[in-house]
Amino acid sequence: MPEYAVPTPKRRRGRPRAGEAGGRERIIAAAIDEFGELGYDGSTTRGIAARAGVDAALVHHYFGTKADLFAETIGAPMRPDVDIPALLEGSVDGMGERVVRYVLEAWEKPETRKRGILLMRTGLGNRLTTPLLAGFLQRELFARIAARLDTPDAELRASLVASQVAGLLIARYLLQLPALADASVEDLVARVGPTVQSYLTD
Amino acid sequence: MPEYAVPTPKRRRGRPRAGEAGGRERIIAAAIDEFGELGYDGSTTRGIAARAGVDAALVHHYFGTKADLFAETIGAPMRPDVDIPALLEGSVDGMGERVVRYVLEAWEKPETRKRGILLMRTGLGNRLTTPLLAGFLQRELFARIAARLDTPDAELRASLVASQVAGLLIARYLLQLPALADASVEDLVARVGPTVQSYLTD
Repeated sequence: MPEYAVPTPKRRRGRPRAGEAGGRERIIAAAIDEFGELGYDGSTTRGIAARAGVDAALVHHYFGTKADLFAETIGAPMRPDVDIPALLEGSVDGMGERVVRYVLEAWEKPETRKRGILLMRTGLGNRLTTPLLAGFLQRELFARIAARLDTPDAELRASLVASQVAGLLIARYLLQLPALADASVEDLVARVGPTVQSYLTD
Repeated sequence: MPEYAVPTPKRRRGRPRAGEAGGRERIIAAAIDEFGELGYDGSTTRGIAARAGVDAALVHHYFGTKADLFAETIGAPMRPDVDIPALLEGSVDGMGERVVRYVLEAWEKPETRKRGILLMRTGLGNRLTTPLLAGFLQRELFARIAARLDTPDAELRASLVASQVAGLLIARYLLQLPALADASVEDLVARVGPTVQSYLTD
């Protein structure tokens, strides 16, 4: 979102004016909270504006419709445009472990985990938002991984990687299956990394 | 649910009386539709009763609260008490492919797929229903798989199997990632079966 890039906002009270630095970020943070608590259908741009302490008109001005705003929030906790290329640098060998370690270490951070859980819940919980989540994953993640693989079935391989990574996040952080929730990052990297590697290169 | 077991209902019009064969099944089918269309928060036992053509009191009589009814619907499309033991019979070798083939072949049936998608959406989309889904999976699936493995980390292994199988279903049928949605069952069994097998036995 380079055209709107602003410095990290200072925490402050009061109602930001249109165009004030930080308004955009506060709206995205408010949207993540609202979608997470109320689901997509229960959320409104008016409610999101109230949480952010801005006028609803400002939300529309920055983001357009509720669907546009949701699409924007999906990317907010991550910087795939920065992180993914770094992750895919270097040898294809070991990429499986790097991918699993990167994702788990990101989700171990409370703020990323909170946002990730809320967005995955919202993205999977509603038939309108699922294609938005799928489109984001396709565009930002699989397309980048597939481009790194030089095989005719690169897209299928990248999608299988996604299926295992998404399943791991859901099982550990949403379903909180006890054995997976209790396992260390290192143990999971050692067990799941080779799976992801085999999808990439076997 | 042995205490309520009734013969398969004949399709018929009209409002079943309490205790009439088929009322219970109609309520579960109606609940799956309601949860799938409106989400957990948007669904009511009154609305479910109306879809089933029965009194709301009958829904409460059979199932208790909305949460109880949701927990009941999770199991409805499957018969894990019958299917899972059959799947786990025979050698541990090849069990990975058998599990993947069983799940995919089940979800290729339109009625199972429809119910499975709706229940997964509802189960993951709401923080109240997620533990109900996790509990069902734990009790009916992982516990059975773990019991079949004779290792100290059996529960973690069974949970990793679940993470890959759930991720595959979500990526193929909910997110409908193109490469995964277009792949044949045979291709996916050949690619994902070895992963599941490695979680079970490596």
